[in-house]
Amino acid sequence: MRATVMYGAGDVRVEDVPDAAIKEPTDAVVRVVLSCVCGSDLWPYASLPPSVHGRRMGHEFLGAVEELGSAVRGLKRGDLVVAPFVWADNTCDFCREGLQTSCRHGGGWGHALDGGQGEAVRVPQAQGTLVKLPVAEDSPLLPSLLTLSDVYCTGHHAAVTAGVNARTTVTVVGDGAVGLSAVLAARRLGAERILLMGSHRDRTDLGREFGATDVIAERGEEGIERVRELTGGDGTHTVLECVGTQAAIDSAIAIVRDGGAVGRVGAAQYPAVPMDFGTVMRNITLTGGVAPARAYIDELMPDILDGKIQPGRVFDRTVSLAEVADGYRAMADRTALKVLVRP
Amino acid sequence: MRATVMYGAGDVRVEDVPDAAIKEPTDAVVRVVLSCVCGSDLWPYASLPPSVHGRRMGHEFLGAVEELGSAVRGLKRGDLVVAPFVWADNTCDFCREGLQTSCRHGGGWGHALDGGQGEAVRVPQAQGTLVKLPVAEDSPLLPSLLTLSDVYCTGHHAAVTAGVNARTTVTVVGDGAVGLSAVLAARRLGAERILLMGSHRDRTDLGREFGATDVIAERGEEGIERVRELTGGDGTHTVLECVGTQAAIDSAIAIVRDGGAVGRVGAAQYPAVPMDFGTVMRNITLTGGVAPARAYIDELMPDILDGKIQPGRVFDRTVSLAEVADGYRAMADRTALKVLVRP
Repeated sequence: MRATVMYGAGDVRVEDVPDAAIKEPTDAVVRVVLSCVCGSDLWPYASLPPSVHGRRMGHEFLGAVEELGSAVRGLKRGDLVVAPFVWADNTCDFCREGLQTSCRHGGGWGHALDGGQGEAVRVPQAQGTLVKLPVAEDSPLLPSLLTLSDVYCTGHHAAVTAGVNARTTVTVVGDGAVGLSAVLAARRLGAERILLMGSHRDRTDLGREFGATDVIAERGEEGIERVRELTGGDGTHTVLECVGTQAAIDSAIAIVRDGGAVGRVGAAQYPAVPMDFGTVMRNITLTGGVAPARAYIDELMPDILDGKIQPGRVFDRTVSLAEVADGYRAMADRTALKVLVRP
Repeated sequence: MRATVMYGAGDVRVEDVPDAAIKEPTDAVVRVVLSCVCGSDLWPYASLPPSVHGRRMGHEFLGAVEELGSAVRGLKRGDLVVAPFVWADNTCDFCREGLQTSCRHGGGWGHALDGGQGEAVRVPQAQGTLVKLPVAEDSPLLPSLLTLSDVYCTGHHAAVTAGVNARTTVTVVGDGAVGLSAVLAARRLGAERILLMGSHRDRTDLGREFGATDVIAERGEEGIERVRELTGGDGTHTVLECVGTQAAIDSAIAIVRDGGAVGRVGAAQYPAVPMDFGTVMRNITLTGGVAPARAYIDELMPDILDGKIQPGRVFDRTVSLAEVADGYRAMADRTALKVLVRP
């Protein structure tokens, strides 16, 4: 079968790889119908050292069940399913607590395993991992349903962990696909005042449609100052950090209101957060992390099926599997927000 | 009147100062009946640069109302009252949210204002700040009631913000008076497994009486390893950081279980916390801060009045006001855990 392999920074190839196949009785094989490129794929795309064997890519996908291991219950061949970006047994103590990202028998796609940016995937712990989609393969809802794999659940996780509700003001740091998803999630959780920090006009325009009430295009100290102006000097009750850089987390800490929380879901590219004496005096909470998408899919899917929300609007380009390198390039160049891959 | 003034590191004097007096209609004057030295007083005792005017000291006290400003309601002369370690109007938006430490019209004792380590104190925002104690001046409960001013509420804040309950395991970092108070608070909130990290045997013995189930005397990496051994490698759901040093917060982050929370109440002597990519992947929350004691006093007082808990057992020495410098020295030398001051 064909699949995406990254051999180093900027070096993404589509190659023949061994066919996805059942290895454990808890496995399934899923034929990929729709996949995409993640903002977090851009970190290795910028910095992965050259390697001989390469790294299989893609952790967001939905597809059709092709084969099932003997121990898998509740699924059948032909079922359309979405996979969260981490596989998990969904029965261990962490999973029962809703933290499937720390599953005692779980792990991530790609690397030495199959990745989503390919024709098919061996899915470990298939019964716990895969969630059935009650639509057909040609449904126009597929892009939005694909966001349940990662990006929309990640924005939702930032909002949930920070405690967003109808009484909280919100700042979203970052106008990438995660940031825009966080806007949508915050609005869905009832937030009425949502400040979006981002300087790409086409992205922040979509952010406004998703529910942002104010856009802060200024960066760094100017951006911090602008948030303070808009909030009577206080900052907002919650800040959703959706970038992962030192500058983004520093800004997040600076603009959160006393007693408030920063929910961070950006893949941290920093060693430490300035949670100093001042933040102790201000009772600032730093929370969030890698999103346990599996814990949220059941809750978030109905609004997509009903057409109430369209998180799939973050996709603004589609490539074939053969063109996946173009997709990476477009996202790295910021000419595309988020790229769908149709094998 | 006589009051404690610190002129620099190690230089604590008791001197004549202007009598405490009403300046604003919202003030009261309280004659101090019982005060104490705080672990946080040891930071300036170790490092305050020499100064000509000095700094008035003491932020924990209870006493009798001597005089009331014309705007103060609900209090009368002779009432015995406890003062939280931050004064607050108790009506602004932050106060209504239970964050009196960020009150829009509040502040701290000492410095240029009266401090608790003296004969009397002018109390700003007296109506919002002072809480009546339903006991007499000679009650044996006074030391425990004094802990509502700061130390017990601070331990409680660590436990509350970290989310301690009957289902959470707990590690308390630090066997000072705050750490021991945190043990007591965690037990009161239902925790059944409480690990106490501390190397002073007499203190950890009291910690066991307060509810600690395990004592870890090892420090640094050895201590971290020991917590892991005791928790099947996972760490504990909650960690209460009650010291404030870089080593303490680093340990706290290292021993908190995936998805867990560190409630920190130590006065942070560090610029940043190692909340890096690993802690994102583990969904670690860093929370806590300076305790809004005023928010907790009504809830915590009944168990003291009923004799169910005795947080005042953290006091192991009593000095007169004239001897206050001996009290500082004893705490700095670790020959006393926490020192009562009777003016």
